[in-house]
Amino acid sequence: MPLDEFDLIKKYFDKGTIKNTNVVLGPGDDCAILAPLDGQQICLSTDTMSEDVHFLSSLSGGVIASRAVAANLSDLAAMGADPYACLLAVTLNEVNENWLDQFSDTMFSILRRYSCPLVGGNVSKGPKLSITMTVMGSVPSGKAIVRSGARTGDSIYVTGSLGDAKRGLEMLRSGKKQDYLISRYCHPTPRIEEGKALRELASSMIDVSDGLLADLGHLCSASHLGAELDINSLPISSNLKEEVGQELAYKFALSDSDDYELCFTIPKSLEDEMKRLDWSSLAPATKIGTMIPGDDITVLSEDGSMIEMQQLGYKHF
Amino acid sequence: MPLDEFDLIKKYFDKGTIKNTNVVLGPGDDCAILAPLDGQQICLSTDTMSEDVHFLSSLSGGVIASRAVAANLSDLAAMGADPYACLLAVTLNEVNENWLDQFSDTMFSILRRYSCPLVGGNVSKGPKLSITMTVMGSVPSGKAIVRSGARTGDSIYVTGSLGDAKRGLEMLRSGKKQDYLISRYCHPTPRIEEGKALRELASSMIDVSDGLLADLGHLCSASHLGAELDINSLPISSNLKEEVGQELAYKFALSDSDDYELCFTIPKSLEDEMKRLDWSSLAPATKIGTMIPGDDITVLSEDGSMIEMQQLGYKHF
Repeated sequence: MPLDEFDLIKKYFDKGTIKNTNVVLGPGDDCAILAPLDGQQICLSTDTMSEDVHFLSSLSGGVIASRAVAANLSDLAAMGADPYACLLAVTLNEVNENWLDQFSDTMFSILRRYSCPLVGGNVSKGPKLSITMTVMGSVPSGKAIVRSGARTGDSIYVTGSLGDAKRGLEMLRSGKKQDYLISRYCHPTPRIEEGKALRELASSMIDVSDGLLADLGHLCSASHLGAELDINSLPISSNLKEEVGQELAYKFALSDSDDYELCFTIPKSLEDEMKRLDWSSLAPATKIGTMIPGDDITVLSEDGSMIEMQQLGYKHF
Repeated sequence: MPLDEFDLIKKYFDKGTIKNTNVVLGPGDDCAILAPLDGQQICLSTDTMSEDVHFLSSLSGGVIASRAVAANLSDLAAMGADPYACLLAVTLNEVNENWLDQFSDTMFSILRRYSCPLVGGNVSKGPKLSITMTVMGSVPSGKAIVRSGARTGDSIYVTGSLGDAKRGLEMLRSGKKQDYLISRYCHPTPRIEEGKALRELASSMIDVSDGLLADLGHLCSASHLGAELDINSLPISSNLKEEVGQELAYKFALSDSDDYELCFTIPKSLEDEMKRLDWSSLAPATKIGTMIPGDDITVLSEDGSMIEMQQLGYKHF
């Protein structure tokens, strides 16, 4: 007899091994129950990943879990929030136990790292694989870092390096299996610790999931400002530069980066304090530009001339 | 130029007209932010509805919104929780503005009735329409009604009437457009008020979305008990009885009811108090049986003999 919805949940999604004292009741009832958080506010986000739209159907369950969880936790990171609990709604087109094993193992291993229990969810059948995750995080009241707080003159930073995931995906598509850039695509690291470290420092923040120009564009729009970027300062990994050359690396970094890095702004008065943070266990932050009046993003080349930008990030429709 | 993801969200899903003092930041950032709730716990649930699996693709956007929101709010009702905020992840196979208008209008009209703002979400493209909603509700700390609290001898009740939605769906499939039973399928009422009224009275509760026997089975299993039902006492609407006759009406009520009614247990000592509640604005509650030792559900016919039950609710796989 094939596994039904309840068997699947029991076998793959009900692994109550992640402890969180704020979870009063985990999966298995009509709702999960969470306890109030003293002096904290709750950050809440949801994200869907669908086969053939957001990922190749040939990817393993482990890679899909890794990207789905990272994409969601990255939204918490972008607020400076601590992961707290999550829900998973998965639509399966078939019951492939090997795939489910990989998906479940990887998902719980990442969630365990962030003490983020899965408290509920839903398994249903559909024409294509689709994963909708909902995450909750906590942040001290009033300390969440929103997109709208940037001011003229604030410096713009990004964590890590940009453009790696784009090339990693291209390599996967061409049949390659292992490479640093492929691992950057397959197993992005949500920048939770970096986001938390920036709570008292960043005036605004967003995660880069649709391309730097597109996402910085959202931050600019929410802050009613423009931005000036110095192309030369964009953090490009040596691997990407070797693989595609400097010019294409810059293009990937600006327009195609779904690296789940954080882009944030720091008021001039807090820049020294930011640099004094203990960055030894954090992804490095690189200054890439400045917030300016207006509503455009200008990219300056090495000689200070403006570069024409066409493609502004990935659009779903 | 066709509408992109951000245009769609702005036009159809960013209607910030529902006020809730606990929502600090609504849609538009990486996360929504919710304020802590004094002395309350949070109930959290998610549910997916997919075209051709959970609903006919011919249904209007209004009906699909109505059923999706009701299914989710019904999970809050089953805990005795008050709706508080929700998230929506929708996968569209095409941008049909007429459909989206209906969907959006109906969804917001129901959410407004329950003061439940949409605080975030996700719009993506996929092969089939799919709607994943996540709801949060609040309940006074320690007062949520879980499935596991039933005790031997507790009376079993259900709200409203059972089986109507099943026949309503059959009528829709055969081309009929308007009928009381069709409206019961298309526009189920989440029993939020009933759930709240039962907070200090019910020992356990579940909503009936997969059939009474299946859902009461979950309650029995969580409470490590069995149940004895009196078939004669099942609440059947006169419309259903007229439409399909008594025998089939009982079958629908037991095995096919996705009416989003509440099934709950009341200790004998609290039954009088429950009856003294002001039921004038609530769906009536009907006693249908008693919790007994064991792990089976027994259904007794009018003459007290046991009825053989085969089909135990809808299974997704």
